[in-house]
Amino acid sequence: MDVLDVLNLGEVSVYFSKMAMFPVFDLAYYIVSILYLKYEPGAVEVSRKSPVASWLCAMLYCFGSYILADIILGVCPIDYFQHNTHILLATAVWYLVFYCPLNLFYKCVAFLPIKLVLVALKEVVRARKIAAGVHHAHHAYHHGFFIMIITGYVKGSGVALISNFEQLLRGVWKPETNEILNMSFPTKASLYGAILFTLQEAHLLPVSKSTLICVFTLFMATSKVFMTATHSHGSPFALVESWVCHLLFGSALAASDDHHAPAPAAPAPAASPVKTKEELSEGTRKRKSKKAE
Amino acid sequence: MDVLDVLNLGEVSVYFSKMAMFPVFDLAYYIVSILYLKYEPGAVEVSRKSPVASWLCAMLYCFGSYILADIILGVCPIDYFQHNTHILLATAVWYLVFYCPLNLFYKCVAFLPIKLVLVALKEVVRARKIAAGVHHAHHAYHHGFFIMIITGYVKGSGVALISNFEQLLRGVWKPETNEILNMSFPTKASLYGAILFTLQEAHLLPVSKSTLICVFTLFMATSKVFMTATHSHGSPFALVESWVCHLLFGSALAASDDHHAPAPAAPAPAASPVKTKEELSEGTRKRKSKKAE
Amino acid sequence: MDVLDVLNLGEVSVYFSKMAMFPVFDLAYYIVSILYLKYEPGAVEVSRKSPVASWLCAMLYCFGSYILADIILGVCPIDYFQHNTHILLATAVWYLVFYCPLNLFYKCVAFLPIKLVLVALKEVVRARKIAAGVHHAHHAYHHGFFIMIITGYVKGSGVALISNFEQLLRGVWKPETNEILNMSFPTKASLYGAILFTLQEAHLLPVSKSTLICVFTLFMATSKVFMTATHSHGSPFALVESWVCHLLFGSALAASDDHHAPAPAAPAPAASPVKTKEELSEGTRKRKSKKAE
Repeated sequence: MDVLDVLNLGEVSVYFSKMAMFPVFDLAYYIVSILYLKYEPGAVEVSRKSPVASWLCAMLYCFGSYILADIILGVCPIDYFQHNTHILLATAVWYLVFYCPLNLFYKCVAFLPIKLVLVALKEVVRARKIAAGVHHAHHAYHHGFFIMIITGYVKGSGVALISNFEQLLRGVWKPETNEILNMSFPTKASLYGAILFTLQEAHLLPVSKSTLICVFTLFMATSKVFMTATHSHGSPFALVESWVCHLLFGSALAASDDHHAPAPAAPAPAASPVKTKEELSEGTRKRKSKKAE
Repeated sequence: MDVLDVLNLGEVSVYFSKMAMFPVFDLAYYIVSILYLKYEPGAVEVSRKSPVASWLCAMLYCFGSYILADIILGVCPIDYFQHNTHILLATAVWYLVFYCPLNLFYKCVAFLPIKLVLVALKEVVRARKIAAGVHHAHHAYHHGFFIMIITGYVKGSGVALISNFEQLLRGVWKPETNEILNMSFPTKASLYGAILFTLQEAHLLPVSKSTLICVFTLFMATSKVFMTATHSHGSPFALVESWVCHLLFGSALAASDDHHAPAPAAPAPAASPVKTKEELSEGTRKRKSKKAE
Repeated sequence: MDVLDVLNLGEVSVYFSKMAMFPVFDLAYYIVSILYLKYEPGAVEVSRKSPVASWLCAMLYCFGSYILADIILGVCPIDYFQHNTHILLATAVWYLVFYCPLNLFYKCVAFLPIKLVLVALKEVVRARKIAAGVHHAHHAYHHGFFIMIITGYVKGSGVALISNFEQLLRGVWKPETNEILNMSFPTKASLYGAILFTLQEAHLLPVSKSTLICVFTLFMATSKVFMTATHSHGSPFALVESWVCHLLFGSALAASDDHHAPAPAAPAPAASPVKTKEELSEGTRKRKSKKAE
């Protein structure tokens, strides 16, 4: 039985999970995505030198999840490009973010309170995409649980999973890392979300889909808004993950309590260096994109 | 109403646009394409060391546009390889260009007057491919204007768009550039051609398709023959593009008139360094392929 | 008429060619494949740091041939992932090879006599995959001989053909070489096997398919067991290939007899340096994977 039904929230969640994403939520998704593209080092120079490459990158940022899911399911990868209105809207956002006189649009949407609202709206779209991806794969492969998880994961993570190739389009090549080797919080959350939605689709989770969408959206929106507001990139999963990985895969533990390691040179917990590195890169991104303006 | 009808050229253009491409035009396409492959630094060594890799590269040069368009539309990427005659013809050309005793075949087809004719014939095929690509996408997505443009573009540009991966097959990796970041003249022309053919397919251009094919072919053949004859790589679009990009995307202008930049160190117009670099590389290519013989 | 019928082996070969591959042979395939993954430098570190990346690599090693063939034929690349049992079995093998306490499982299966049996069983699966790939392509393209050869080749070679991208997933990038430029013995044998099975499917080879599967399996199993036992990587095709390539493609001959090259510095035959290099790398692999344990 539904947990939230007890709190009489069932109807709210059904209404919420049926709400149309276009245009408000999708617009927020495009704005935040292209904002992140502008943060990338070198993206502004590319937009001046080769507008076509910049536009393609922006489309990958906005529609990467559809493209990837279509590739994964073996259908036309640019199938989503038949929705001319969506493409034109994303193109307008790309133009305004990169070429607006006095950089006005960018300054508006990068203004923290506005950005926080947009980030929250973006996470609403992400949760929906994961649910839709899992549902779509379930429709094609009734018992293909792995296919459902992979499709939902890909729908939630989007361009992050092909960031190496998106960077290549801008002339940047960083083979030593990728989003699978070093998962960021949204990618991890998409993976866990995809697993949850797959369990729900397989009737192994005693909640309705609308409730799951609602709860997952709330969790994602809260986490991302908090992380954006505090410029933090630490993951709420860090502690649990650290222990599970240690037990299952023998990974080094965050805290050194069970190794009794006396070595003072490398006692850093597994989670915090990642956080520090990403905070640094966030700082660098900001500085670089400001210089570029 | 048709512009060329006034000049009584309508029937000629219809006849021209229905002419069979196989075998004469296709043969010219294969010869010129594989000639360009042989110009690539290292291609001759690869052909000696690994004939399979060399053959695959040659097939990518000849059929890259079909492979890419099939990928883009989500069908079997090697679908075109069912045409055994085409593959065998291209294989024969590849063999003759790379392994003919005394390099006789290469010397014949690289002889400037012959090469100019072949280059002109190749552009006939390119124009047809763009039109066919746009038409094919129009058939699948009636209002998918972006899909039509992308398909036509990909059909016209062919292997150039995946040159990074084609080079990787030969053990060469140049991530700092790609065909989208630095578009060559044929790639740009394919993009503009795809836009024109899409407008025509959407009945926004008051010309018949056969006329458009005819005019576009004439323009491409003339431009490429002129550029091949003069070893030039400057684009006829350079001036217009420079102004449009400056107005729309704030790109640096070719001429420095509106910045009143006093700096004498970097007054080079945007178009000419590209030209110079490509002329140089053309020279290098020639020298290297001569040494390799 | 069938050659083996004379020896009354016809029925045996039919029985052999109809034998179910799951679970015994498939299990051997997964074990040997993931063993090779563990030999790769850095694979053990990746398995500690990012189990998801390690699992994905393991899946590519086990199911790369299905994924590639599906891509080549334009169907859902993760279609095979609907077979949950196979995926779970491969996942269990991956877990045992990488995370088994005391490394017990790895030590068992890497023990030479056991490994030789597993290697032989793996080759049985490879021969079947090539035959199935050619047959599948023949079903879709009745006269697409090139498509049949490519599909069979891809089904036999599997992950080797995309090793560059599989390495990229683990943060390793070696663009200067790839499996097409420097074919290993199984890749070459898969190519020749695909050609043979295509000829058989086109009725140009006077043997039944079951006989061909039987003979090819015997050849592959014997060769691979011998090569694994002697740590050799020299190919049985080396001499014939060297002459054919010299005649057809002007490649340098293994023996220097027809060049009368007096230079004593580089008289090494073409086959032996490859062998030596690969023997070395085999040694390095072993040492590294032992250190990593």
